[in-house]
Amino acid sequence: MGSRYQSAMTNPKPLPHTDPRLTKLAQSLPATVPFVGPETQERHRGAPFAARLGANENGFGPSPRAIAAMAAAAAEAWKYGDPESYDLRAALAAHHGVAMENVLIGEGIDGLLGDTVRLFIEPGDAVVTSAGAYPTFSYHVTGYGGEIHQVPYDGDHENPDALMTRAAEVGAKLVYLANPDNPMGSWHTGARIVRALEALPEGALLVLDEAYLECAPTGTAADLAIDDPRVLRFRTFSKAYGLAGARIGYVLGQANLIAAFHRVRNHFGVNRIAQAGALAALADQDWLRHVQDQIRAARARIGEIAGANDLMALPSATNFVTIDCGADGGFARRVLAELLARDIFVRMPFVAPQDRCIRISCGPEPELSAFEAALPDALAAARKA
Amino acid sequence: MGSRYQSAMTNPKPLPHTDPRLTKLAQSLPATVPFVGPETQERHRGAPFAARLGANENGFGPSPRAIAAMAAAAAEAWKYGDPESYDLRAALAAHHGVAMENVLIGEGIDGLLGDTVRLFIEPGDAVVTSAGAYPTFSYHVTGYGGEIHQVPYDGDHENPDALMTRAAEVGAKLVYLANPDNPMGSWHTGARIVRALEALPEGALLVLDEAYLECAPTGTAADLAIDDPRVLRFRTFSKAYGLAGARIGYVLGQANLIAAFHRVRNHFGVNRIAQAGALAALADQDWLRHVQDQIRAARARIGEIAGANDLMALPSATNFVTIDCGADGGFARRVLAELLARDIFVRMPFVAPQDRCIRISCGPEPELSAFEAALPDALAAARKA
Repeated sequence: MGSRYQSAMTNPKPLPHTDPRLTKLAQSLPATVPFVGPETQERHRGAPFAARLGANENGFGPSPRAIAAMAAAAAEAWKYGDPESYDLRAALAAHHGVAMENVLIGEGIDGLLGDTVRLFIEPGDAVVTSAGAYPTFSYHVTGYGGEIHQVPYDGDHENPDALMTRAAEVGAKLVYLANPDNPMGSWHTGARIVRALEALPEGALLVLDEAYLECAPTGTAADLAIDDPRVLRFRTFSKAYGLAGARIGYVLGQANLIAAFHRVRNHFGVNRIAQAGALAALADQDWLRHVQDQIRAARARIGEIAGANDLMALPSATNFVTIDCGADGGFARRVLAELLARDIFVRMPFVAPQDRCIRISCGPEPELSAFEAALPDALAAARKA
Repeated sequence: MGSRYQSAMTNPKPLPHTDPRLTKLAQSLPATVPFVGPETQERHRGAPFAARLGANENGFGPSPRAIAAMAAAAAEAWKYGDPESYDLRAALAAHHGVAMENVLIGEGIDGLLGDTVRLFIEPGDAVVTSAGAYPTFSYHVTGYGGEIHQVPYDGDHENPDALMTRAAEVGAKLVYLANPDNPMGSWHTGARIVRALEALPEGALLVLDEAYLECAPTGTAADLAIDDPRVLRFRTFSKAYGLAGARIGYVLGQANLIAAFHRVRNHFGVNRIAQAGALAALADQDWLRHVQDQIRAARARIGEIAGANDLMALPSATNFVTIDCGADGGFARRVLAELLARDIFVRMPFVAPQDRCIRISCGPEPELSAFEAALPDALAAARKA
């Protein structure tokens, strides 16, 4: 979840012959996918990347205790995972000071966003998001026949007030807002989110994607009652906790809203190894703080690399840094291509004006050094082109 | 996937207050879940089970190479899994002698069945299955608003011809058939499936669930061209390969049908550890043969235990044995309850007349011995009640 830009969005596959047995909606859907994985790019290149800094994965890795727990769980992989994820839900409820009925575990935020859209959106329903925001949410909205209404960013920030205003205009059922934001790394204070919510129209629900919250400063989490019926909050073990490949995230909200997921979710869909890994990761808050320190240091380091190349790094409350390449989207795309050609996997926003930037994940020093070494030549080549 | 009977089906939770923002369909859905996991039952009992023989998990375990591959992959869990599952798809394509475009990996058969129903069923569409067949398929059909039409078993077998006849009568878009069958363990020859398919009505698709195929005799697989547009075939690593907790299965079919899944699936939903485990499990066909031997021996052993108690074990082409308790569903439910009370986790069919049976998964000798020790007392107590 979170962050796999530079994608098939710009390279849609041809629409295959449409089987007449498919639903009308399924027949109408494009065959695009939100993101092309780095493995696919490596296969097409015929060479591995030297730095994997494009998907906002956490190269500092999960807690060693989580790795040990997953390795131990591997031997028990013949057992289905607990469909209630009881132990993990209990631990998360205690961690957040809420009841277990306020927590639901799912196959990453992506999977939970899909279930959310399925529960609330039928064909023709209006949904509001920002132009250039997380595309997998919009993928699900399109997939269930919803109509997407976009508002522009306010500078490098999503615009909570404009989202609410548009929601009222179009009668939206869902409003999507990521705080902190991907792909720009910007953030609002929790207080700003709370204020904006006052303008959420009747009949709408705020989908608050907090995938990067553990990377953000204190005060970024909105101070809302857990049983506030206006919002569902999405969290993940993919980012600060370093478990993207385990596919495990959760949603926090009013018990009645959480209960609705049980009507449609894949009850046995969360794998047993991920449950064990997430439980151990959550218990190791020392490791989380250690990673938070590493992320802060890496953000500063990426900022220095940008500055040394006369580029501006945007402030970030995430585990990535978005760098303004100082010109238009065409130039940033050339920079990206030149970096990829130099074995550096990074991505970039795909909508103007954010697409003047490239986006670099925080990672270990050897990968940041590889980026540092490649950037000057990539910029020079992009300027020559 | 496959087999988690004795469930909340008989114990529905109260319908929570229905949020008016939910879709009309979501508002109408029951809050039941297909199966209650053994962990939930253990929590309610306050004691662990001595034998875990209820979910058709494979207690003989996955290949040691698969365990080693998953343990190694745990350290790389900070990376998203390859959304194309390229290496595993390539290996499966080679294994089955088909093209990669004929294979799609998903989060177990359960997840793939959900995507299938989503692609083909809109509210009011007719779907045909057998009364008492795998309930998770029907859960998905209900979840997408489909109308379920059931045909009875023919003795202890699903009835392919009756399924096709009913499909023609109701204009079904999907027909579900498991071969081998769960919960009865029965099977048809592949030739019988091929013949039945000739009567599949225009506009329908056969959902052929082959979760237990690796446990079945030669000749059980239907000999159909991979590009036959009438059928999708569902396979899993959960049963003979022993990876239920890893959540990984696949669907085989015409490239055009497979391509449709890319329009709706959760592209990054298959976890990285499962991909590594499945790849290693598939490569270790010696281990598969070893497990197949163990399953055959366990089936015989369960048959002996049944016979020693004057019960009849039904022939099985799966990794479980269904035992006819010789009376009605009420009696079998008492036997099941008495077994659970004696720390033996088993399940049973939940629809008459199949519910005269209990269903015992193949497992290691200590668990079968525990079942053997508990059964006489459980039967006596059930007869007294």
